[in-house]
Amino acid sequence: MTTNLRSFMTEYKAIIDKELVEQIDYLSIPTSLKESMIYSVSAGGKRIRPVLLLATIEAFGKSPALGIKAAVALEMVHTYSLIHDDLPSMDDDDLRRGKPTNHKVFGEATAILAGDALLTYSFEVIASMKDILPQTKIELVRLFAKAAGPEGMVGGQVADMEGERKTLTLEELEYIHRNKTGKLLQYAVVAGAIIGGASKEEVRLYKEYAEHIGLAFQIKDDILDIEGTEDKIGKRVGSDVNNDKSTYPSLLTLEGAKEKLEYHRNEAHSILHKTSQKTVLLNDLIEMIVSRDH
Amino acid sequence: MTTNLRSFMTEYKAIIDKELVEQIDYLSIPTSLKESMIYSVSAGGKRIRPVLLLATIEAFGKSPALGIKAAVALEMVHTYSLIHDDLPSMDDDDLRRGKPTNHKVFGEATAILAGDALLTYSFEVIASMKDILPQTKIELVRLFAKAAGPEGMVGGQVADMEGERKTLTLEELEYIHRNKTGKLLQYAVVAGAIIGGASKEEVRLYKEYAEHIGLAFQIKDDILDIEGTEDKIGKRVGSDVNNDKSTYPSLLTLEGAKEKLEYHRNEAHSILHKTSQKTVLLNDLIEMIVSRDH
Repeated sequence: MTTNLRSFMTEYKAIIDKELVEQIDYLSIPTSLKESMIYSVSAGGKRIRPVLLLATIEAFGKSPALGIKAAVALEMVHTYSLIHDDLPSMDDDDLRRGKPTNHKVFGEATAILAGDALLTYSFEVIASMKDILPQTKIELVRLFAKAAGPEGMVGGQVADMEGERKTLTLEELEYIHRNKTGKLLQYAVVAGAIIGGASKEEVRLYKEYAEHIGLAFQIKDDILDIEGTEDKIGKRVGSDVNNDKSTYPSLLTLEGAKEKLEYHRNEAHSILHKTSQKTVLLNDLIEMIVSRDH
Repeated sequence: MTTNLRSFMTEYKAIIDKELVEQIDYLSIPTSLKESMIYSVSAGGKRIRPVLLLATIEAFGKSPALGIKAAVALEMVHTYSLIHDDLPSMDDDDLRRGKPTNHKVFGEATAILAGDALLTYSFEVIASMKDILPQTKIELVRLFAKAAGPEGMVGGQVADMEGERKTLTLEELEYIHRNKTGKLLQYAVVAGAIIGGASKEEVRLYKEYAEHIGLAFQIKDDILDIEGTEDKIGKRVGSDVNNDKSTYPSLLTLEGAKEKLEYHRNEAHSILHKTSQKTVLLNDLIEMIVSRDH
């Protein structure tokens, strides 16, 4: 990772971590609900969505501070999706990032409600943003709901569940990823561009950039699941292969998946090249996504 | 019910029922998700929240048509809350209004996601309203999220769960009702007033009116659970008493609960009397809530 990106991420990850807790801590709500919400927003993670949002604002020469609330709202929705995905009736996971999942600690009912609360509250957080025009805020609300809702993340999650244990076509696999993880990553960039004051044409370009990094992110995930095994570097055996899950390598071969990753990396760079903003952090983010080892 | 209110309810219930299905039907989403969402929004109900919202707009001399989308969004959120409340880890109900609950038909995972989808989508529906200023829409989003979120409906549901099988104080009981059911009813009236062009002072008055009818609604529910038993009119034995649930009659005696109901009824009427709008439908709604027999 470049020094630039590393210091940007370090600075804003700390701010986001703090704001996430503060925004919840000041609410007058039942203790168990507050503890459950704070437990999951504090569980760590790279805060890649907030960083994408804030780095895009910076590309437009505006202060990332303008987008802190939008970034916090985005991370709340990402967190709610993890809490609900981990539930017994969904992926039934006991651990996330080495810590017990929300329902393991607080029980299933509270976990469901903590997820509902984070999702709902995120819209209040956006609506309460300072120094942003009402028409900008309502556009952020509209796009955020669209990205997270039935035509976005929730639809992708349903398709993912239904696609388990059957062989998908490449088209079906891309539908899942474009929606389950792609739409929220895309919203991060689009929201940053809008807050940065982008024109419609600029928003269109940045949205395309975000599509490529969203798919690159997922392809890299699938590759890591295999190469971790092959390299025998102490990682557990690829869970996708064991679960007969359709992945880019299983549909395209490992070589084919790597070519596709390279394609999306190049496209993302070439789109940024067409823009007139200072996109050095956004270029670095592509490299970070493509070269990460975990 | 007066002829006025009956014809208003009949007219707008039909519109809301149709719009709810149409707004979901046109989405490009997985079939199972669409079926699950439509199943629950079509499951019936009096549509009391939408009617309150639209009747308040009418009181201000504006066309209720302006608020159809806001009313639909409100009913989507009410519906999501019922789907999640019925889940095995919550109230574990197999039937709602005589039909199998969502998770009984579509499975638990899809039911959770259908609830998530309805909640998220409701904000897109509000953000897409026509003929409403951006600053009005963002205020609706903010108040809606606040009413439905951790400081409103979700917080009330957590407190209700935690309050089961223990004797509550009257204060605790009111916290639950003010939040679990009260806040969304209140939002219905406040949203109608805002769309109707109310001043801040008028919004404050209508909000007070809504508080009283929200509590009246709940007290009447508790009374019906007992009187249904006492009158032996074929209703099943009061489920609250059997579950040792704290209710207004259990804390105040049946007579005391009836006095409290009468108090809120009179307060609601006297607040409307102070306003300068044509509140005939809103007055009738108080009577409907207080005199209903189911």
